[in-house]
Amino acid sequence: MRIATIQALDQADPLSAKREAFVLPEGLVYLDGNSLGMLPRIVQSRVEQVVKQQWGHDLIRSWNLHGWVDLPVKVGAKIARLIGAEPDEVVAADSTSVNLFKVLLAALRLRPERRVIVSDVDNFPTDLYIAQGVSALLGGYELRLVKKDEIEEALDHQTAVLMLTEVDYRTGYRYDMGRLTRMAHERGALALWDLAHSAGAFPVYLNQHGVDFAVGCGYKYLNGGPGAPAFLFVARRHQEAAFPFLSGWMGHKAPFAFIPEYVAAEGIRRLTVGTPSVLSMSALDAALEVFVDVDLEALREKSLRLTDLFIELMEPLAARYGFELVTPREHAQRGSQVAYRHQEGYAVMQALISQGVIGDFRAPDIVRFGFTPLYLRFMDVWEAVQRLEHVMRQDLWKDPRFQQRAKVT
Amino acid sequence: MRIATIQALDQADPLSAKREAFVLPEGLVYLDGNSLGMLPRIVQSRVEQVVKQQWGHDLIRSWNLHGWVDLPVKVGAKIARLIGAEPDEVVAADSTSVNLFKVLLAALRLRPERRVIVSDVDNFPTDLYIAQGVSALLGGYELRLVKKDEIEEALDHQTAVLMLTEVDYRTGYRYDMGRLTRMAHERGALALWDLAHSAGAFPVYLNQHGVDFAVGCGYKYLNGGPGAPAFLFVARRHQEAAFPFLSGWMGHKAPFAFIPEYVAAEGIRRLTVGTPSVLSMSALDAALEVFVDVDLEALREKSLRLTDLFIELMEPLAARYGFELVTPREHAQRGSQVAYRHQEGYAVMQALISQGVIGDFRAPDIVRFGFTPLYLRFMDVWEAVQRLEHVMRQDLWKDPRFQQRAKVT
Repeated sequence: MRIATIQALDQADPLSAKREAFVLPEGLVYLDGNSLGMLPRIVQSRVEQVVKQQWGHDLIRSWNLHGWVDLPVKVGAKIARLIGAEPDEVVAADSTSVNLFKVLLAALRLRPERRVIVSDVDNFPTDLYIAQGVSALLGGYELRLVKKDEIEEALDHQTAVLMLTEVDYRTGYRYDMGRLTRMAHERGALALWDLAHSAGAFPVYLNQHGVDFAVGCGYKYLNGGPGAPAFLFVARRHQEAAFPFLSGWMGHKAPFAFIPEYVAAEGIRRLTVGTPSVLSMSALDAALEVFVDVDLEALREKSLRLTDLFIELMEPLAARYGFELVTPREHAQRGSQVAYRHQEGYAVMQALISQGVIGDFRAPDIVRFGFTPLYLRFMDVWEAVQRLEHVMRQDLWKDPRFQQRAKVT
Repeated sequence: MRIATIQALDQADPLSAKREAFVLPEGLVYLDGNSLGMLPRIVQSRVEQVVKQQWGHDLIRSWNLHGWVDLPVKVGAKIARLIGAEPDEVVAADSTSVNLFKVLLAALRLRPERRVIVSDVDNFPTDLYIAQGVSALLGGYELRLVKKDEIEEALDHQTAVLMLTEVDYRTGYRYDMGRLTRMAHERGALALWDLAHSAGAFPVYLNQHGVDFAVGCGYKYLNGGPGAPAFLFVARRHQEAAFPFLSGWMGHKAPFAFIPEYVAAEGIRRLTVGTPSVLSMSALDAALEVFVDVDLEALREKSLRLTDLFIELMEPLAARYGFELVTPREHAQRGSQVAYRHQEGYAVMQALISQGVIGDFRAPDIVRFGFTPLYLRFMDVWEAVQRLEHVMRQDLWKDPRFQQRAKVT
């Protein structure tokens, strides 16, 4: 493909101006927005304001003055549009893991006579760990972990909950949320989706698909910052019955009445627990401003073009250097990342990072490239492939310093 | 008392220089550090560095480069000195409520044959709510809530856990941690303490008293910022048996091996769950630097002098305007706050805040004043009482705008 063709794609990109909303380190091609989104410029000033003015000057008065107490529902409502939910069905709180614990418990309680949780054995581990913790706590549950093509037959009339992550964190495979949710419902089970690699990457249609519960991450495609608060979704029809076993004061009907008996708040707020993390929550709140005028269908279209282009440009390298594509070529089955299996994946990725292209590695042998349509150009895709070719052609990855594994990979 | 006597107290104060470590809004007397600590100067630059350099520039590499992944144990170790624990017995994570849920579950599992949780009916509500959630989840538990002077007789051989907050959030009453813990142990129960109003206010001696579990707050006397991460303590002897039912990937033995089976990490890290909130955690980490050279016994001594002085200066007002002291005069029974009952407490506090003295109100009729030895002067105490006298003498609290309750009080 000629470079002019790629430049033309950038010129025609309706989202190209969004790039300016982010802090862009010089010379860096960042293909890891699926792990930690880049810093939106608006977040810098917001965090400074929250620290200096709200905390430093207004102090405790800010709970009312600057609406700290409403941040979880305000941020939740902003996320709702991105995932096809109503504003009162989503709340920002805690971590994805803690939120999963909450909604999984709530879901199981809605199907008390059923004792099976079905999930994907390749689901992101924390989802499986949380399900194991919940099972150990309640006792008598089976966590039925199967391969992706065995989900359908694993669902039966003992299944309480089908718990899946829409996009596989390693391969980038995207489930058919509508079909799987329907199948779960046909067996009388509930559907719980983890949107970690979906929210902010492409439009999600939770209510259109009749999804029951969902959770998701604030620091990947939503660009909320490292360890940003996560979110959770409970369909309106389940909210009244969704008892919050993690029953903290922020989920109380009257948190500031300070009565000794717990009475769950009406609606989604009942699934909040402790005092919201105002600094982190404010950063996420600001980051979501970037999405306000974004056409989510255009976002998806650009995401597919970026990943298509990457796959195409990678083809000669894949053949020559042993990269095995593990991401589906089929659009409907693809999230916003592309992954390859490579025997020396760890060292290759380290060498590539040293050349200013950041992707990441997932054990045992996956190199992973995330494509964030808000701040990536088509020319970045071209540049990334050029630098990877350089790494491979020059055997840069053989340098001993790239063989030594870091603590976090 | 003559003003010169008070000025002399400030001149002789060994902690007076610490005041300069904080951002001090002009003219404000801040007696609400027991609700939200003031902003340490060092936090401003740290947060700016984390946002701009670590997140904005170094991006995902910061997990290793800037030690993000170790923040929870690093911050926990800093808190350990303040509460009389070993560095490997404390970790910073989540909210106080979520941490209480974790350690209460862990504690109950250590006494499986016992089905009673004893607590104070006046405990901070979120502690009671969490205990109610845990009880509802496990089934068959009794939450035995009694008055402070009935704790001893409430403890019996059915008691699994004695769960108390060391300092009462309303009255400022401080329990005898050593005695209560011993009494719990004599009945074969475990002792779980909430240090929300203790950590950073005076030295706590968890291990000296043989405490089993504890939780605490990062945003009060530790000055970690609004909604700062909380902490939890598990005595080393219980760590191996403390199973984390909230079993997220950060508590896994090998979080980045991405294996589907949960294996709890060795030690305190097993009680962490999801990705740490890096912005908030970094703010708390920086805030704790202020404590590094603080003599905790000197901190306690100043705290008692501040509260003694306040009580003394308040005496004429108490008599004249109907403030009923609810904080013990006995030093051993006092935390670092002073509270009064007053029929018009809400309006009085609003009027006082309008005069630049910030305390807070707790339903139904408590006005509460927190004394943070790190940034308060004895002259601030004098000034606060002068302004309160002005409010009462001029009937300022009768202004209708002070009668209307705010969302958060």
